[in-house]
Amino acid sequence: MSVSSNPYAPNVADLVSNVRNFQIIESTLREGEQFANAFFDTEKKIEIAKALDDFGVDYIELTSPVASEQSRKDCEAICKLGLKAKILTHIRCHMDDARVAVETGVDGVDVVIGTSKFLRQYSHGKDMNYIAKSAIEVIEFVKSKGLEIRFSSEDSFRSDIVDLLNIYKTVDHIGVDRVGIADTVGCANPRQVYDLVRSLKNVVSCDIECHFHDDTGCAIGNAYSALEAGARLIDTCVLGIGERNGIVSLGGFMARMIVSAPEYVKSKYNLKKLRDLETLVAEAVEVNLPFNNPITGFCAFTHKAGIHAKAILANPSTYEILNPEDFGISRYIHFANRLTGWNAIKSRVEQLQLKLTDDEIKEVTGKIKQMGDIRPLGLDDVDSIIKDFHAEL
Amino acid sequence: MSVSSNPYAPNVADLVSNVRNFQIIESTLREGEQFANAFFDTEKKIEIAKALDDFGVDYIELTSPVASEQSRKDCEAICKLGLKAKILTHIRCHMDDARVAVETGVDGVDVVIGTSKFLRQYSHGKDMNYIAKSAIEVIEFVKSKGLEIRFSSEDSFRSDIVDLLNIYKTVDHIGVDRVGIADTVGCANPRQVYDLVRSLKNVVSCDIECHFHDDTGCAIGNAYSALEAGARLIDTCVLGIGERNGIVSLGGFMARMIVSAPEYVKSKYNLKKLRDLETLVAEAVEVNLPFNNPITGFCAFTHKAGIHAKAILANPSTYEILNPEDFGISRYIHFANRLTGWNAIKSRVEQLQLKLTDDEIKEVTGKIKQMGDIRPLGLDDVDSIIKDFHAEL
Repeated sequence: MSVSSNPYAPNVADLVSNVRNFQIIESTLREGEQFANAFFDTEKKIEIAKALDDFGVDYIELTSPVASEQSRKDCEAICKLGLKAKILTHIRCHMDDARVAVETGVDGVDVVIGTSKFLRQYSHGKDMNYIAKSAIEVIEFVKSKGLEIRFSSEDSFRSDIVDLLNIYKTVDHIGVDRVGIADTVGCANPRQVYDLVRSLKNVVSCDIECHFHDDTGCAIGNAYSALEAGARLIDTCVLGIGERNGIVSLGGFMARMIVSAPEYVKSKYNLKKLRDLETLVAEAVEVNLPFNNPITGFCAFTHKAGIHAKAILANPSTYEILNPEDFGISRYIHFANRLTGWNAIKSRVEQLQLKLTDDEIKEVTGKIKQMGDIRPLGLDDVDSIIKDFHAEL
Repeated sequence: MSVSSNPYAPNVADLVSNVRNFQIIESTLREGEQFANAFFDTEKKIEIAKALDDFGVDYIELTSPVASEQSRKDCEAICKLGLKAKILTHIRCHMDDARVAVETGVDGVDVVIGTSKFLRQYSHGKDMNYIAKSAIEVIEFVKSKGLEIRFSSEDSFRSDIVDLLNIYKTVDHIGVDRVGIADTVGCANPRQVYDLVRSLKNVVSCDIECHFHDDTGCAIGNAYSALEAGARLIDTCVLGIGERNGIVSLGGFMARMIVSAPEYVKSKYNLKKLRDLETLVAEAVEVNLPFNNPITGFCAFTHKAGIHAKAILANPSTYEILNPEDFGISRYIHFANRLTGWNAIKSRVEQLQLKLTDDEIKEVTGKIKQMGDIRPLGLDDVDSIIKDFHAEL
């Protein structure tokens, strides 16, 4: 049903940013299993599910129990763990799948069907009437079993907006718990996301979930814009693993959200577990942590240029919006290079407990820059130059 | 000067999206040199500059010639290469730096000064009047030498909006070629970027350049929103290298822009050189290509889930918004796993030139899923199962 029956009432979308009230549907064990390198055996799935639960995600989504016999057994095993997070499984919009899903012990079922002309033509070949009919049958069946039910379109941003709003309105009316928007091919941009979620917010009263692929690098920006427009739940994977180059990464999303809603994020999620969680999944799928990963990339808190180092030494907030301590990580001032400045070297001189005047420090900084022009420097090189200079005085 | 002297004229910002008319300021040899692992000797800088020029970037930005003696010599050497791209160098807003910069042979000078309260307090310690005075002096000096001049604030999104618009209006009035907005700490989000650029667009008539760090994962989304709001130039680095976890990556930005402005991007940039360019820089700074890198990540065009593989075989556009051929890359259907579907296996059976009915293919797909439940599969495993099954018929 529509949120407001008075068409002249204030636009609810202006009031309902969920930036301070979002939830995470963690899909490493569903979308993540579609990553090229992923093969999780039962033991690894349980280890990952427990680690996600420790981190504090709201939902854990699992591969469809009809994908394979073991997928079904693993789903049942994870449901029996008694985790705090709610367990979901993800199925096609089909009664054959739904009948298997409701017997696994999950708390909820995520149903998806392609609504774009591409997917309607080349994937399942069905029209919107057929989609609506299937959706109603599956939703009413899952609800009759007392489980949560989400209905999502697939490839939403290449679907006809009227078709989309129509089917979302229909499933909202029969009492679905959430509707989902999915940027299945990774084509959406932030303002487009904001507009679609805003439109949808005026049509449904249930929660809105969003799923963003990262093919064009906008997944996190899109997720943030979706929350601003009133979506409440975001799908993530650890390190963003998934089909092709994946979806919103849990760590990157935390980086975005801690800046915008620090109290909410810090009170709800166990951020100091992020690095271990990422390491667990990276090892399981045999990838290296990307060098430029938000928060946990090896240089995410490394400051190099002279003017940066100077200001960071005086106050870390000058060049850091994230506090590495929130994630159990340290910052590093990289002063062994030709871009270094005399303030960073002064700090090092003090650490070495040597006494030099500012003019002397500027002079030795010049020597360090000279050496840095010739080759990459280590910390030892800088210390030697400083000590030699001090000894010669 | 203001764009329109009639305050009731149509808002120019609504008409001037630069999504189909953007330019790239490539900063691998400036911002990228601030990456923790970067040490580029003269030969490597020249190799990278030539590769960027081959790719077709509009501008190449170089480290300040006052950073070190070799930095100055390298700047001069690159200016003498006769590249098609315009060469810029990046300096503090100070006459000492400007005097050195204009003698190097560059086409233009990028001036930057911190305008946030953090940077004004902990970096240079100057007030807005001092900043304006320095800016005017430096800008008029650089212009008097016949060079392009850009004035940028630093940490723009934590600066006072009135201070910002004030100084941008001042420098626009004295004829600066571009003004720059910099998200130096990586805190901005897409709608905030849109709003600031739109406001600025109403104040200045010169081009607007944007520089986005990626600490919170929004750099590419922010760049796109900035172009929509009327910014024209985006700073990029190859693989996004830079301070901390870096800025907008050239490859990720190309992925975003080819989706939105395919003809413009394909006619202007040599996309098939992207992979070689990324490999060159990755080797120079000793990092691996991130597994999830847009376009060139090892699995960016790998499709795994059964329903994805089926549709991709029928029409690649179903699950791909990017065409890998534009970048000289191939797609890959990953069917050797338990998530596989019978359509993908059917395609493999045909490649193996075997004859099986659809029912037989569904049966052998079941066997492949059984084996995929037990362990990761290789292509050989799948082929063996198919061939054994065929032989037994």
